[in-house]
This record gives sequence, structure tokens and C-alpha cells, in this order.
Amino acid sequence: MLRSLLYPSSVAVMGASRTPGKVGNAVLANLVEGGFEGEIIPVNPHGGELMGLKIYASLEEYGKPIDMSVIAVPTTKVKDAVLSSLKAKAKTVVIITAGFKEVDEAGARLESEIAELCRRHGARLVGPNSLGVINTHHKLNAAFASHMPKAGGISILSQSGALCSAILDWAASRKVGIATLLSMGNKADLSETDFLAAFQCDEDTKVVAGYLESINNGDEFIRVAESLATTKPIVILKGGTTIEGSKAASSHTGALAGADTAYEAAFKRAGIIRADTFESLFDIATAFAMQPLPKGNRVAIITNAGGPGTMAADAVARAGMRMAEIDPQISQALSAKLPAAARVGNPIDVLEDASPARYALAMEAIQTDPGVDALIVILTPQAMTKAPETARAIAESVQANKPVLAAFMGGDEIYLGRQELALANLPNYPSPERAAAALKAMLDYTAWRLQPPRVVARFPVNRRLIKSIISRQLRLERTYLGEVRAKEILRACDFVVPDGRLVSTVEEAIEVGSQLGYPLAMKIVSPDIIHKSDVGGVKLGLNTRREVADSFELMMVRVARMAPQAFLEGVYLERMVPKGREVILGMTRDPQFGPMLMFGLGGVFVDIMQDVTFHLAPITSAEAMGMLVGTRSFRLLEGFRGEEGVDITVIAEALQRISQLVTDFPQIAELDINPFMVGGPGEKPVVVDARIKLAPGGKPWPA
Amino acid sequence: MLRSLLYPSSVAVMGASRTPGKVGNAVLANLVEGGFEGEIIPVNPHGGELMGLKIYASLEEYGKPIDMSVIAVPTTKVKDAVLSSLKAKAKTVVIITAGFKEVDEAGARLESEIAELCRRHGARLVGPNSLGVINTHHKLNAAFASHMPKAGGISILSQSGALCSAILDWAASRKVGIATLLSMGNKADLSETDFLAAFQCDEDTKVVAGYLESINNGDEFIRVAESLATTKPIVILKGGTTIEGSKAASSHTGALAGADTAYEAAFKRAGIIRADTFESLFDIATAFAMQPLPKGNRVAIITNAGGPGTMAADAVARAGMRMAEIDPQISQALSAKLPAAARVGNPIDVLEDASPARYALAMEAIQTDPGVDALIVILTPQAMTKAPETARAIAESVQANKPVLAAFMGGDEIYLGRQELALANLPNYPSPERAAAALKAMLDYTAWRLQPPRVVARFPVNRRLIKSIISRQLRLERTYLGEVRAKEILRACDFVVPDGRLVSTVEEAIEVGSQLGYPLAMKIVSPDIIHKSDVGGVKLGLNTRREVADSFELMMVRVARMAPQAFLEGVYLERMVPKGREVILGMTRDPQFGPMLMFGLGGVFVDIMQDVTFHLAPITSAEAMGMLVGTRSFRLLEGFRGEEGVDITVIAEALQRISQLVTDFPQIAELDINPFMVGGPGEKPVVVDARIKLAPGGKPWPA
Repeated sequence: MLRSLLYPSSVAVMGASRTPGKVGNAVLANLVEGGFEGEIIPVNPHGGELMGLKIYASLEEYGKPIDMSVIAVPTTKVKDAVLSSLKAKAKTVVIITAGFKEVDEAGARLESEIAELCRRHGARLVGPNSLGVINTHHKLNAAFASHMPKAGGISILSQSGALCSAILDWAASRKVGIATLLSMGNKADLSETDFLAAFQCDEDTKVVAGYLESINNGDEFIRVAESLATTKPIVILKGGTTIEGSKAASSHTGALAGADTAYEAAFKRAGIIRADTFESLFDIATAFAMQPLPKGNRVAIITNAGGPGTMAADAVARAGMRMAEIDPQISQALSAKLPAAARVGNPIDVLEDASPARYALAMEAIQTDPGVDALIVILTPQAMTKAPETARAIAESVQANKPVLAAFMGGDEIYLGRQELALANLPNYPSPERAAAALKAMLDYTAWRLQPPRVVARFPVNRRLIKSIISRQLRLERTYLGEVRAKEILRACDFVVPDGRLVSTVEEAIEVGSQLGYPLAMKIVSPDIIHKSDVGGVKLGLNTRREVADSFELMMVRVARMAPQAFLEGVYLERMVPKGREVILGMTRDPQFGPMLMFGLGGVFVDIMQDVTFHLAPITSAEAMGMLVGTRSFRLLEGFRGEEGVDITVIAEALQRISQLVTDFPQIAELDINPFMVGGPGEKPVVVDARIKLAPGGKPWPA
Repeated sequence: MLRSLLYPSSVAVMGASRTPGKVGNAVLANLVEGGFEGEIIPVNPHGGELMGLKIYASLEEYGKPIDMSVIAVPTTKVKDAVLSSLKAKAKTVVIITAGFKEVDEAGARLESEIAELCRRHGARLVGPNSLGVINTHHKLNAAFASHMPKAGGISILSQSGALCSAILDWAASRKVGIATLLSMGNKADLSETDFLAAFQCDEDTKVVAGYLESINNGDEFIRVAESLATTKPIVILKGGTTIEGSKAASSHTGALAGADTAYEAAFKRAGIIRADTFESLFDIATAFAMQPLPKGNRVAIITNAGGPGTMAADAVARAGMRMAEIDPQISQALSAKLPAAARVGNPIDVLEDASPARYALAMEAIQTDPGVDALIVILTPQAMTKAPETARAIAESVQANKPVLAAFMGGDEIYLGRQELALANLPNYPSPERAAAALKAMLDYTAWRLQPPRVVARFPVNRRLIKSIISRQLRLERTYLGEVRAKEILRACDFVVPDGRLVSTVEEAIEVGSQLGYPLAMKIVSPDIIHKSDVGGVKLGLNTRREVADSFELMMVRVARMAPQAFLEGVYLERMVPKGREVILGMTRDPQFGPMLMFGLGGVFVDIMQDVTFHLAPITSAEAMGMLVGTRSFRLLEGFRGEEGVDITVIAEALQRISQLVTDFPQIAELDINPFMVGGPGEKPVVVDARIKLAPGGKPWPA
């Protein structure tokens, strides 16, 4: 589909200019100097000749169909250039010119107009405000950048053009190879999702490194990214993470979800490795591009100095990896070949005067150890150190079945050594900590890939009943469903809800109370009252007819005083629930990524410690378990210091049921079950309180 | 005191060699090429001449007293070289030769012998196994390193010689200036504490950057570091942080203190900035060396590209700093001078075609804004970018009253620009995140410096009583003090302890019970039983004579069955404490840094959430408050969702009282008050349970 984007056979440069420094000049020069083997068609009304190519006054003059059109004319002339490109059957239009959506409303309108034009002609649009497109493996440099990077396995996706320049400059100086570079610009048509899909089929792309500030379509993004991640690692730096999201959430769950929670959940679900910093983005991408995945977390460290070895061991432990125990036979054999002072434990210290050959000896021995999953090789520049030769020796001794990451520490003296490493496809870092962090990312990705296939269970529910409740509320334009209706919906999902009835007079309360049996809870029911306790609208532990009568009358007085405007539907009487462990289950719907489930232990664990986990719905059984285990307070569920544990499988199942409910009914915007009372093994958990919010303006029923 | 270390007038090189690559050759060459202006005395039995200097066969031949002796002879000859240096009145001996404590027992013995020799002669010893000593401001390069670094404000202290080489190489390539470099080697005599003290008086040292794996004397280290930190920032990377500490702790507090807790507490107390990685060590040190301290946390960002500006804003927010709001008048005036598309909000985007002059305009305007405390200036290499010229323009526009940190992103194209920045004393980083992290460290240090002077309160206590209890227990060789004696000690410190008595028969229990008044708690007392509940040794809420009698007899039966070997002192009966908020106060004594106080909320907050804070004793009132506020669960103490808050000042005072107790009585090795029951304002908190462990083998009373 996007073949003409990465492998065009002909490229027109609209606005090809003979003035150095101008975009149209630079792009043409890049195409020519990059050695593009297809046809290059420079277009400029002035005609003439440039860089050995005839300049056409127009595409009409050229007369043949073109594959890709790169547009570098002034903003006001972009639309015309696009039109003539489309007439010439361009399949991909790349607009480098800026001055559209990013500037003002008029720019935004012009941008959508152009996008619509392209769509109507069946052409795809990159940009506007893009730095362009590079595919080193096709010798295509259709970008306003200074260099054609070396060919390699990293494909870059960026929402910032400036960053592309910095990345290309960095890659050139570090001798790191790039497969493709796609500068997305304003994403008027093609966006991250399309490019990720394109990478799936691009054999030269081994890993994707992306900088994103926004995502156009959350669901689609997750689907495509997840599919790509099963074969190629995706590393993304998300910009704008700390900008406060909209805080209109009325539910507990909504309030606890930060602006970044949904991105975190989406990336986790899709198997995307998230980079925290600009440097870690490429630290990680380079490791993936150059080395095989680790099979386990046991790391061996080879170093020519103690201090940096210690730093590396610290970093390994802090990242949750393990220092490998070297096989005694292997370490003995190695020891015999090394100077007496060398240490063959882990870290393996080959001493400050280590020659390239000595590094090679250690490398060869350690790689054969089945107890070692990955190697970090450290070099500091000592008096006898030959960095470039050592780099070559290390590279030559790599057996390519386990990842090897190098940390060469210093400045000018190790500079050439680092370049040798990169040229030999060994990822190298200026510190052991960064090598360890990159290795950890590889390990996390490996774990994600090894997960069993995701199977989402389906539970039988009374869909018709749920549908009718929701429809009715929406017809009445009620978006807030209080306890009574929320419980009806949950009961229809097979949740256990205590016996209860809505009553409206004291006589009815006494009568219903004695039918339900004691002890009883009594709660006010009003669409206008969300925090019932705050207005005296909750009374627990009622044991007699008299207590029921007294509480009813007192509640009426207090609620009338504290919430005089509230419309009262009545009072809800229900059987008290036996004491168990209180947990909270919730859902909030992210505008980008859809329903996000939440789990936490109740009370202080949520209110004070904010000890909750999130996961995007729909959720599998293993993922639901992961949400439980992921809380810091999980040990309390298992049972602790003699307290009995609770049945965690029923909580996981409840999360799956909610997952199904909110996936099936997109009208549900937010949901809280708080508390959800969980007993010991064999006991069914009970929904003690619940509320649901429907999407305002939601349709009673989708067609 | 250490003047002869940093400013020697003459330096002998023992083992000066004419063989290139040998240590004695390299050190002599470094001294000569470094331009040392004092006398250089090469010593080698073969005599002759080298690098224009006469080689003496021995120091006797030289005949005059020397200031410093650098020893680079083989290990077996080191002792003789030291002896003749001492005879020549050397005040500082620097042993570069390795093969001592780091190798084997024999080496360790030889090392102490040599250290003792030096001590007897009043000379100070650096090393052995040191890379040597550099003081650029004295043109002294008495080290086995490849370069003489550029003179600057950073003094380096390292427990790893190899790291020194990497640092010097890094500094040279980055054009970062070094004041002194001290490679500590095995620290047989001079250690981090001595060197920190030396830096105090060294005017050229603006900031200290250190790599430490161990600390020789914790108390002394804190004292010296704290004193130095009041005038000069100290940044330390601690290696070996994740190695498991000894886990013999029997107390709650001891078990919760990780291997690294004491270092964390010590660094915090001393005002030391802790670096997490090798790179951050120098990121931070460079910022301190080159820029003034920020007066607040409002950061302005100037950038030539949107993406990196967003990254920087993210990093600023994540670090807990604020994006400055630019004064509208200033931004309007600036806007008038910049192209229309430029953005003058914050980040200030001077656009991709920004000239050096445009950066200077923005720099000048923003620095005048009183609402801006610090600047981060970002450059990405675009087509028109002139990195070196821009670097110079930025440097020239710096007004030096606010810190300015630069982030130049890319590779070769910004390389010269970064060098220009460094030469102009502007700290520069390869990413905005690292600039922001360095700025945050500056801010933290500023906050530490602005703290009011530490005043530790003294409370009147019954010292005589405490002394007699401890003495008696130590005479009896009892190191574990159970509830009864621990409470006696705490009562002597004016803690409120419930009324209670030790009883030994059921009749006595009934009698004492009715005297104390109900409700009562009953607990077994035995030096052999630490977890009383586990053996049925605790019964709460006894309200009648009969309940007292029943409980007593049942407890005797159960304890006898479950702990048949235990020696029983009796049963402790005490008045029940009214319900309040349970907290835990504790102390564990770190072998290096002494008493560490702990605070946490009781129950699950400690057991499950490990939500505790530590602080080294003695503690001030503000520090005690800081321990409370530092817990995640602090909001619960303040009162939350209608629950009443507790009196936090009494908890802070209790921590100070414990601080005084454990500082005055070093025999106390561990202490737990768990729970400490705290009521509302005006109520005195009560020690519900407590235990104390004395140091095994502690003397009954120090002389």
C-alpha cells in the first residue's frame, strides 16, 4: 500500500531551486547526492538545468506520470503544486512547506482542503510541515536534512522535524545506521498508524524509534502497533506527557487516572517500549537494531577497571536483572589464561593493562557459559589501552547468540573505539548505566513477546436488560446512574448485589425492612446527591423496626436541610453485607484509547496511597491478575500476618466482567464499584456500592 | 594541613624510568609537561639524565629535604622507597604502585606497615594503588594519567583510579576545567574525609565531584562534608549501592532499613547531592562549576524547535520545577523583534532558521524577567543553523545572575558549538532532559543551603535511671530488653506509658487488675519471647476479675505449650490505651553513620506499604517534622475525609526525644515503639508496646 512512499520509482521536486540554502535546492541536492536510482524531476517555472538535470517548467511539460511529489514551494503556491502533482498521478505527496495548521485557522482550512484533494485523487499525503522522507535502502533522500545517513536497521518516525535533524546528525557522528526516516509534520493525512503499518512490510526495518506528541486514532494505533510489535520492537518517546489532561471526571477512577495513564496503558498493551528521554530512545533502539534478544536476565560484565564494574553491577541490580554466576569450570579455564591479578568472578576484571587479545579471551569464554544471557563490556582508557583495536577484538569475538553491549567511558581516547564498535554493529554507550538500561528494555520486550496469545473470555449476561436500563436513562437525559440503577446493571452482569428495595414512606420502610431481614443499611436515593454520607444520607447496621423508623425520619430531616434542592427518589433499604476485604473496581473512558479499567484496595490504599493499577479493556484473565499483583498492597490480598487471604480469582473475574460490560456498552463513560466486598475462598464477592456515568449526549442506542 | 598535598614545592619521583609506558616514566613526563614550577627530583638507581633533568641514584644523593614523594617502584621495593622518602622529610607520600590490600592478606599487612611508618614520621599517605594527584592551578600533574586537564573549578575525588582516567579523558574532550584530581586508592591513610577538608581551604575548588565505594569514618565524614557543603557543592556517585547489607537486624526498624538507607540519610544530612549515574555526576558538577545558583524554580526555555522544547518542558515539570510565566511586556517587546511565526510564550521558539543574533535577542530579553529564575537554551541543527556562532552569541549574552544551561542536540554539526559553550563556561548537555536534571540538583542544593541553622533541642530526662537500667542489663549480659524494661526507659524519657504491673500468680493478677482498673491488657514477659502474640501471650480488653483470672490461666497453659523453653518473668497487666492513630517510631544503628531514626504509620502502612522515612540522629524539630511529612500516608495524620487529625507536633517531639536517648546512650543498638498511640490535639500520646536491643558486648558504662 505504502510502497510508493518508501520505494518510489520517480520523484518530482516542486520548487527545485538554484539558490543554495533554499529548501527546494537542498531537497534536490539530497536526492541527487543520495544516489537515488529512479527518475528525479525538478520542477520550477524558470526552467533551465541544475545538478546535471533538466528543470521542467511544470509537470505538464514533463508529461509522464510520477510516483512521488515533494513540495517545497511557498505556502500560497502549495495547493497549485499539489493539484498538478495529482494530475500527474502522484501516489505520494510530501509537503515540506510549513505555514498551515501550526500557524492559524486559515492555515488549518487550507491544510484540510489539500488533504481532501489528495484523498479524492487516491493519493497519500505526508505533512505538511514535514522534514520529508528518507529510505536509505532505496537510496531515497527526499528530505530537507543535511545528511544521507548510513544504511541500517532503525526506522524513525517523528512528529518533530527539528528532532529529525538532530537524530540524523547524531546517527552520522555515531556511525549508527538508519533504515527510513519519516517526518510526519502536521499529519493531515498519513499519521503514525499508517507509518507503523508500512514498517510491518519493510524488511530493512529492524526496530522503530518514534517521537510522538499526539496520536490520531487510539484504537487503530494500538491494533497496528501491537501487530507490528510481535515481530519488531517499537520504542517511543512521548512528548507533552506532563500537560494536565482534562479533569472533568466525576468518578473516583477518573480522578485517579493522570493525564499520562492512558498512554502508559496503551503502550503496555501494544508492547511498545517507552523511552523516558531523548537519549534512551536511541540507546534502546540501537541495542535492538544491532543485537539479538536476551533469553534471560543473567548478565555478565567484563571490565578493565573495578569502579566501572561496580557501577555496572549496581545498574544491573537496580534494573531488576541478575548478575550471572559464572560456571566454575569456565572461570577456572579463563583464569589460567589471564594474569594472576585478574578477577574471573562477575564482574570479570581483565585489569587496567588489558590488551585487545585479553578482552577477546574473556569474551570467548564467557559467551560459552549457558548461565550467561547477556554481556556488558566496559572499557576505560588506561595508559596501555588501545581502544580501537580492543573494539575490533571485542567485535570479532562476538558469537551473535547473546546480546553484547559495550560501555566505553571517556572522551577523545575512546572516540575511535566507539566508532569501530558501531561499524561492527555493537551498540555502545558512554556509561555502564546506559548499557544496562538498554539491556533491560530488551528484556522487557522479550517478556512481552513471550506472553501467550491474548484470549478475552466472554461471560453470559442479560444484555437486553442492560440495554433497556441504559436506553431509558438516556431518553430521560440522565447521565448519572446512582446506586440503585448501577446495581441493576451489575446484577444483569451476574454480580452479586445485596437484597434491597426502594421505599418512600416510613411505613413502607418498616415493612420492607422486616421482609429483608436485619441488619440493614439505609441510603438516600437521588440523582442530585453523589456523596450520600456528606448529607446524612447513609445509615448502617439497623437491627430493629424502631431503628428503621427512627433512621428514616432523621434522614428525611437531615437531607432536606443539607440538600434542599435535591430531587429525592426515595430511600434504599438493603441487607448489610458481611465484612470482608474492601476493594475498588472502576473504569474511566479515555478519549483516545477508550475504556481503562482500574483496580485498588479500598479505603486508605486508594484515597491516601493512590495504590491503583490501570489496564485498557478488553482484558484477559492474565492481565486482570496482573492488575491485582501490580498493586503495592497485593500482599494484603494474599493474606498477611495471620489474616486470612481472599479469593483473588473472583476479583480478576469481576474485572473481566466489567471489561466486557464497558466494551459492549460504549455509552458507559465511567463506572465505580466501591467498595466491592471480597470474602475468603468459596465466598461470592458483593457489590456494596456502585455508580455509573453515561456519556453526555450519548445516543440511546447505536444503530 | 594538606598544603603539601596540593601545593608541594618539590616532588620526587621514585622509580623514574626511561622506558616509555612504564609508570615511573609517565609520571615524570606528566610532571615535566604539566609545567610544574617547583623542583622535580627523578630517582632511579641507574642515575643518568631524563627529560632534561638529572636522575639521582637515591634521595641521599639529592641530599635536600623534599615536599612530596611519588612512588612508582615495584611492590616489593615500595617500603624502601617510602623509608628513604621519609628520611628526606617528605610531607606527602603518594604510592601509585598496586599489589597491596586489594590483592591478598600479605599485601594488606605490608600496607598497614607502610601507613604506620608514615604516621610515625608525621607524613601523610595517598594510596597505595592510587592514580596520583593533580592540581591544575599549581601546574602539578603527579599522576599516572594521559593528560593534564584544563584548569577549572571541579575537584575530583575517586576511589577508582580507572575512573579518573575516564574522567580526565572526558573532561579534555568536553573542554571542562578541573581544579584538582585526587585518586584515593586503598585509603591506607588519607581518605575522603581528609580530602574534603582540604577542598574547604582550596580557593580554586568550586565544586567537588566524587566516586565513593566505602566511607572510612561515617561521623567524621558527615561533619566535614556538612561543613564543606555550606560553601561548596559536593556531588557524589556511590558505587556498590545495591549490595545487600548485613541483615541481622531483629527490630522492625532494622529490617526496614535497606543497605543503602544509611548512605541516603547521611548524604541528605550533609547536604551532599547524590548522582545516580556516572554521567549525571559530571552533568551536575559542571553546572555548579560554571553557573550561579538559581534563586527559584521558574524555568524559561529558549529553543529553535518545538519538539525539543516540549521535551524540556516535560523534564522541567517531572523534576518538580515550574515553567516560568514570561512577563507580557517583555514577551511583547521580544515579539516585535522576532519573526511573526516565532513564539514568545514559554518555551520561547526562535524558529528553525534562528540566527546567533536572534538567540542573543531572546536571551537578553528573558534574563531581565524577574519571573524567570533559570534558563535552558536548546539548539537543534537545522539547515541554517550555525552552532559555534550561536554558542558564542549565547555565551556573550549571559548576564551571569541566573543559571543558563544549554542543550545542543545532534552530533558532528553541534560538536564545535558545544566546545565553544564549555570554553565560555556554559554547561551544555546532549539533551534537554539532562540539562533539566542538572538544574534540579542545583535547586535542591540551594534549598539545603537556605535551611536555618540546625538546632537540636534538649529535653530533661532521668539519665540516672536510664543508666542504671542499661548497666544492670549489660552486667547480666542481656541485650534484649522486652516491653517492661523498654517502657521503664521510655518513662524515664518522659514518655507516657500506661499504668501497669508485673504479676506472677493468678491471685496477684486479680488483685492488681482491680487496682489498675478495667479494661486491661495482659502480656507475657520473657526475655526469650519476642513475638508475644504468636505464642498466645497477649490478651486485650479484659473487663472483669473473672476475665483476668481466665486469661491468666489460659496464657500459662498456652505459652508453656508453645514456648516450653522460655524463661518466664511473669505477666504484665496494664490499663488499655484509648484508641487513637497508631504510628511506629524506631531506631537502628548503622555501623557507619550511627543512629538512624525511623517513622511510619502503623500496621499495613509499615508492614505492607513500607511507607517509612529515616533520618540520622541527632535530629532537629524541623527534621522530625520532615520525617512525618515525608511519608506518603501523611495526609492521614492531618485528618482526611472527616476523620479527625492527630497532634503531629507531639510525634515530632517524640522523635526528638528518641533521638536524644539514642545519641546519649550509644549502648542502645535498636529501638522500636510500636505502636505509639496518638490522639487528637491536647492528648498525650502513649507508648503501647516497645522493645530495645543493646549492642552485644557493649560495656555497662563507658569511662
